[in-house]
Amino acid sequence: MPDHIKVSENILSFNDEIAKINRKLLDEYKLFSINIMASPGAGKTSAILKTFEQITGKFKLGMVDGDLASSIDADKANQSGISAVQINTGGGCHLDAKMVNDALKKLPLGALDALVVENVGNLVCPANFDLGTDKNILIASIPEGDDKPYKYPGIYRGVDALIINKVDLLPYIEFDLNYFKKGVEILNPGLVTFPISCVSGEGIADWVKWFTEHIFAKKGT
Amino acid sequence: MPDHIKVSENILSFNDEIAKINRKLLDEYKLFSINIMASPGAGKTSAILKTFEQITGKFKLGMVDGDLASSIDADKANQSGISAVQINTGGGCHLDAKMVNDALKKLPLGALDALVVENVGNLVCPANFDLGTDKNILIASIPEGDDKPYKYPGIYRGVDALIINKVDLLPYIEFDLNYFKKGVEILNPGLVTFPISCVSGEGIADWVKWFTEHIFAKKGT
Repeated sequence: MPDHIKVSENILSFNDEIAKINRKLLDEYKLFSINIMASPGAGKTSAILKTFEQITGKFKLGMVDGDLASSIDADKANQSGISAVQINTGGGCHLDAKMVNDALKKLPLGALDALVVENVGNLVCPANFDLGTDKNILIASIPEGDDKPYKYPGIYRGVDALIINKVDLLPYIEFDLNYFKKGVEILNPGLVTFPISCVSGEGIADWVKWFTEHIFAKKGT
Repeated sequence: MPDHIKVSENILSFNDEIAKINRKLLDEYKLFSINIMASPGAGKTSAILKTFEQITGKFKLGMVDGDLASSIDADKANQSGISAVQINTGGGCHLDAKMVNDALKKLPLGALDALVVENVGNLVCPANFDLGTDKNILIASIPEGDDKPYKYPGIYRGVDALIINKVDLLPYIEFDLNYFKKGVEILNPGLVTFPISCVSGEGIADWVKWFTEHIFAKKGT
């Protein structure tokens, strides 16, 4: 077996072990957790902040924010009242379970109702790394174009819910929603999908309903 | 030294060797070549097709098109009269010099005036792999947001020209051009920048002028 394949397998198996530990920890706290993946600029942070706006006073949110560099997103989240921890991957193209495990140690897990992990903006690498969260969520955005499921099948295949962001831009962009949805349906039949706009607020209520129902379900209430 | 660092170093050094071979081959043919990198959906293919529209009849263009899966982009290019070869990385998050070397063998290099390599849509991984092209070009797009240079410094630091695509969407999106440009200037002082729209055609002439000047310079005419 070539060296690089052996090393990749070792890395993935190590990652899965730590992901199990994260999952067990989050289960002990009955904390519903999601791993949000998307292209750079699809609106991960905006969607998280918009979601938090809707649940403020009802639920306390923790956030693990992955970026190559900078703490722009975690700063925004902390200013909004989310308990956020920044992870800088220093060039790494995705979060892994160990990074999330380190971040969990810095969060007041007992005081939280849900945890959002914002992955590095990338449609390729994050798809291969289980972080130990309950659900994997993909955010697509209208300006990215309607062909993305066909070009990045791996990430569309592996997620539990899909948010289609920036639908307010549909009048200004050529985007064939049927072609897009057909691609998604081939890869991930019946995938629950939320078209939203963080600008107009369209669709946010449906997404937040799904999110809060899962928080309650995990708490067992 | 840990195994994965050793393997990474070996991979990068092997890549650089093949990149040198590609560079030598393209130099022999006096073929100006660019490696276009961008986020998924920033408009790499649209910009290439728009460029080709402007130079049709004057120059013959070859294209190497990298994607995880599908041949959507290469098909579009071939239909437009570009000699295009598709590379499917099968999950790999970037092109490498060996993939480009294999593709070059399938192109009629002697009949071409310029070569465009369209990398996998990704702001992280492609930055580390020299393909042997003359210039590395980054396409940013307005909907991605003005904070991208701060979040993905590696790729902004390593390029020779920057295209800012989809400027026709500026009226509909909050995007602080000064904040964006300030970030670029810190990472890559004096970087030549082309704001363009493939929809309205704005800015295309300046970009095409730069591109064709480089074709002539490489030919030595």
